Amino acid sequence: MTVFKAPTRDTRFVVNELLQLESYGNLPGFAAATRDLTDTVIEEAGRFVGEVLAPLNQIGDREGCTRHADGSVTTPTGFKEAYAKYVESGWGTLAAPEVWGGQALPHVMSFMMEEYLCSANQAFAMYPGLANGAIAAIVAKGSPEQQATYLPNMVSGHWLGTMNLTEPHCGTDLGLIRTRAEPQSDGSYAITGTKIFISAGDHDLSENIIHLVLAKTPGAPESSKGISLFIVPKFLVEDDGSLGLRNSVSVGSIEHKMGINGNATCVMNYDEAKGWLVGEENKGLAAMFIMMNAARLGVGIQGLGQAEAAYQNAVVYALERRQGRALTGPAEPQQKADQIIVHPDVRRMLMDARTFIEGMRALCMWGALQVDLTHKAASEEQRQEADDLISLLTPVIKGYGTDMGYKTTTDMQQVWGGHGYIADNGMDQFVRDVRIAMIYEGANGVQAMDLAGRKLAQNGGRAVQRLFKLIDEECAEASDHAAVRLTAERLSEVNAELKAATMWFMHNAMANPDNLGAGAYAYMTLTGIASLGLMWLRMAKVSAAALAGGSDEPQFYESKLTCAKHWSLRFAPQAQALRREIEAGAETVMALPAEAFAAA
Amino acid sequence: MTVFKAPTRDTRFVVNELLQLESYGNLPGFAAATRDLTDTVIEEAGRFVGEVLAPLNQIGDREGCTRHADGSVTTPTGFKEAYAKYVESGWGTLAAPEVWGGQALPHVMSFMMEEYLCSANQAFAMYPGLANGAIAAIVAKGSPEQQATYLPNMVSGHWLGTMNLTEPHCGTDLGLIRTRAEPQSDGSYAITGTKIFISAGDHDLSENIIHLVLAKTPGAPESSKGISLFIVPKFLVEDDGSLGLRNSVSVGSIEHKMGINGNATCVMNYDEAKGWLVGEENKGLAAMFIMMNAARLGVGIQGLGQAEAAYQNAVVYALERRQGRALTGPAEPQQKADQIIVHPDVRRMLMDARTFIEGMRALCMWGALQVDLTHKAASEEQRQEADDLISLLTPVIKGYGTDMGYKTTTDMQQVWGGHGYIADNGMDQFVRDVRIAMIYEGANGVQAMDLAGRKLAQNGGRAVQRLFKLIDEECAEASDHAAVRLTAERLSEVNAELKAATMWFMHNAMANPDNLGAGAYAYMTLTGIASLGLMWLRMAKVSAAALAGGSDEPQFYESKLTCAKHWSLRFAPQAQALRREIEAGAETVMALPAEAFAAA
Repeated sequence: MTVFKAPTRDTRFVVNELLQLESYGNLPGFAAATRDLTDTVIEEAGRFVGEVLAPLNQIGDREGCTRHADGSVTTPTGFKEAYAKYVESGWGTLAAPEVWGGQALPHVMSFMMEEYLCSANQAFAMYPGLANGAIAAIVAKGSPEQQATYLPNMVSGHWLGTMNLTEPHCGTDLGLIRTRAEPQSDGSYAITGTKIFISAGDHDLSENIIHLVLAKTPGAPESSKGISLFIVPKFLVEDDGSLGLRNSVSVGSIEHKMGINGNATCVMNYDEAKGWLVGEENKGLAAMFIMMNAARLGVGIQGLGQAEAAYQNAVVYALERRQGRALTGPAEPQQKADQIIVHPDVRRMLMDARTFIEGMRALCMWGALQVDLTHKAASEEQRQEADDLISLLTPVIKGYGTDMGYKTTTDMQQVWGGHGYIADNGMDQFVRDVRIAMIYEGANGVQAMDLAGRKLAQNGGRAVQRLFKLIDEECAEASDHAAVRLTAERLSEVNAELKAATMWFMHNAMANPDNLGAGAYAYMTLTGIASLGLMWLRMAKVSAAALAGGSDEPQFYESKLTCAKHWSLRFAPQAQALRREIEAGAETVMALPAEAFAAA
Repeated sequence: MTVFKAPTRDTRFVVNELLQLESYGNLPGFAAATRDLTDTVIEEAGRFVGEVLAPLNQIGDREGCTRHADGSVTTPTGFKEAYAKYVESGWGTLAAPEVWGGQALPHVMSFMMEEYLCSANQAFAMYPGLANGAIAAIVAKGSPEQQATYLPNMVSGHWLGTMNLTEPHCGTDLGLIRTRAEPQSDGSYAITGTKIFISAGDHDLSENIIHLVLAKTPGAPESSKGISLFIVPKFLVEDDGSLGLRNSVSVGSIEHKMGINGNATCVMNYDEAKGWLVGEENKGLAAMFIMMNAARLGVGIQGLGQAEAAYQNAVVYALERRQGRALTGPAEPQQKADQIIVHPDVRRMLMDARTFIEGMRALCMWGALQVDLTHKAASEEQRQEADDLISLLTPVIKGYGTDMGYKTTTDMQQVWGGHGYIADNGMDQFVRDVRIAMIYEGANGVQAMDLAGRKLAQNGGRAVQRLFKLIDEECAEASDHAAVRLTAERLSEVNAELKAATMWFMHNAMANPDNLGAGAYAYMTLTGIASLGLMWLRMAKVSAAALAGGSDEPQFYESKLTCAKHWSLRFAPQAQALRREIEAGAETVMALPAEAFAAA
């Protein structure tokens, strides 16, 4: 049986000390987020996921979801009751607009909750997680009538939602979709087609499910410029808000997957199902990206959440299991062997994990703050800066965050040795569950191209220039504390590599765009290391100041300074190798003809 | 349904052109290995695994093994029949001594077969694979009587064997074992205890199973100096060689694992089972290491084998699936989308895979040759050099080979996008199956310490000095061909980093052995990159010469030169980062007190 205890102390450090959320109190929507309130919400959220959701994680993996003969779908034992408690406590309403029943707290709070949910039970977390994307699309693009019809129940959690994009023959290339939407005389559309890989496609958790479906209207252009977004509720909603007829959407099957078994990944069949256009015809891609960007940040958080849960269980084992002796001599001579945490290679894995996890938590929460500042910062300049930064870093949070989430959960499983491979111990579930995060909502290679091929060039490179400047300023302001100085030096080196790699793209991508494609992945990783470094430099400064101020938790802040140094000594050196890989360009990558692979 | 076709052309390249096996014809045991014979064996082996074993791989994963009410164990559908064919064709006898019914071919041939078996069906391959370790121990340490009693049937494959080391409370630290061996009046021992994680512990494939079991005799020292090795047959063998009574060894349960479901991983209960001492009392560790070293090379080959199988399936998908357009403009404008192999990031993964796989195949086969030369080379100096090199590189082949095997199978699954996460498509099985290879026969962190803590210092560092010299000489002799020159230059840089890291250990490990422990893993990776580079430089030279000689397979050799360049541009740059990580030492790794982890 795995353990999980929400890392509330670290979350409070990020919210209160690193981000200083209270200092934004003058901005709309921030005033309510007093330190007292956020501290309470964080602790209550931690308690909720620990008591209600974590105990269901392994059950969900073992049981999976079931599609019954009548086509209905049930979730694993306990999920329905747990979801009812989730709704009752209003956990889904944290950052939602007040007008639809939300609490309108900063996204820092909803990201915190997403992380905790993912750590405790990723398969469960995906049910409300997907609904968040659907809500975001309706908030941004729905008509006032659609908003009034769907949002109150979706925000409260009484209804859940899905995102229906993928079809058997297309996922990334949405221009190829075949699902049709025929306009009807009543203003609705008849939706017909098959969607696959639909997370939370059907289940027994909520009264209704609001599907957001990409489809093509008659005569639409044959590309992503010809797709439209539709609302297709499982049960039609009557004018008085009550549930009416069952719509003609059904579950063809539930996929048998490597992991996230507690979430029903469905093949969805739409057979002239009744749907309503969201926004304008043929403008579905823009609406889809609203869902997608929210979802991508959420998936990055899954990498973080699973890594945290796996880390906690690795620590338990490393303190419990005794094998061999410390290299410096027996640590506990009265015992037959020392705890394996004495071994430097076990520590290396734990310290790598910790440095990633705490840095990533800071990055995600800082990202959440940018999401808020995009809309709420005082000046247009500040709003634009926040928007630039979070747009640039969304693919990095998704791609680097899930790559490292997978690496970290694998390392934590490794700490358990052979016992980590045994299913009952639960370490392999973390690896299997987090694996999907590198794939869905745009495979990480797609994220890399979003970063290097789209985000980099937008507005003449304004966003990445802002990132360079932010890092340079942060490095220049480093104090004389040894750990802070080291981190600033190494971060400055990493920033130089990132600038050089960016310059190389500018000079070489025009002549041959494959040079960009071949280096995009390394560029995403390099940006991830730099972003983590920026967080570690800031955390090191805060921690050095706390210690100088005579904190009564010196170990907490000393640990932060050690992790900042660990980033400097063990993460930062990779930057140069990545820059060299980028500068290698497309030559060897694209040299062989396609047949040379088939023949191998 | 996954595909697999043994890469026989590449194996023949390694055997005939790279290693030039025929040139060793003057040495004992090599004469029979003519090119005609080895080519035939390679092709037949490829045909056998492709036709008989690969089709059972997914079945084995789905069905797993079954322990019945009477304690007997059956393997998945088809395994029994396939194993009968394996025995009938004599595939297990390739490199075994002639005196016991083997063909006494060079180990290059048996390693080839191990790779093919692992690619086709890792869970199946483990049944004869574990027996190989048991055979090696009896050949090296068994009495003439034991050898005569067990080896003929084990070599033929009519009997299989196991290695019983791990107990619930100890794996790596074998000094802690509790299984007891009480001497009996007839010269046998009564073995009592519980062993766990016993691969192929019981099954229905062979008439008998010869368990090799570590246990302690009364009064034995409380450390690894007090363990002895015993032969414990499932069925006792009568004087006339027939099978007698069932021994009191039974299967407590079959573990439920992340992968390799087709192999029965058993909890074995020994209840005063009849056993016979192998070699001397309290010298079990040395005998165990004979099994272990053979097994470790075999596990490294599992990393290679799974990567090859996953690669082939990724290529199939990359040529079949169409999404998006080439960055340089539509490759097939008449189609709605291009094959995904046009995308540089898909190619990057395929080229990384290929560069690892072909380099690793060369390294494993070259390692097999060293195994033979250790015993059969003409001079003592040559025998010692071969022994030094394979001892040094065994942990590298195991550790780096399986790390990269896992990375590669994960990348190949990534090529499949969402479809790679669906169990029926089989890509996730490669990842789950290969994952164990990083753990068993000594977790990779243990391999790293075997390399940096044991092998490096033996005989005053003679082995690593030999490796440095070998690489330096190979680089110095590089021709003027551009790809060869580039590879030599980059390999020379990597060797310089490896030398610097080795020197750093020498200067810093004495003062604090944790400095060695904290850098050991990076050192193993660095040595792996250098070893792969040595192979790529040699392969590049052979290929450049073949092209200069007017080969009628120019594409094959051009591809080799491209991969050599790919190693130079994409693998070699990591060396510097690894050296910097090593030189970071133990400081941040060991800084935090153990409680600081528990509190996190």
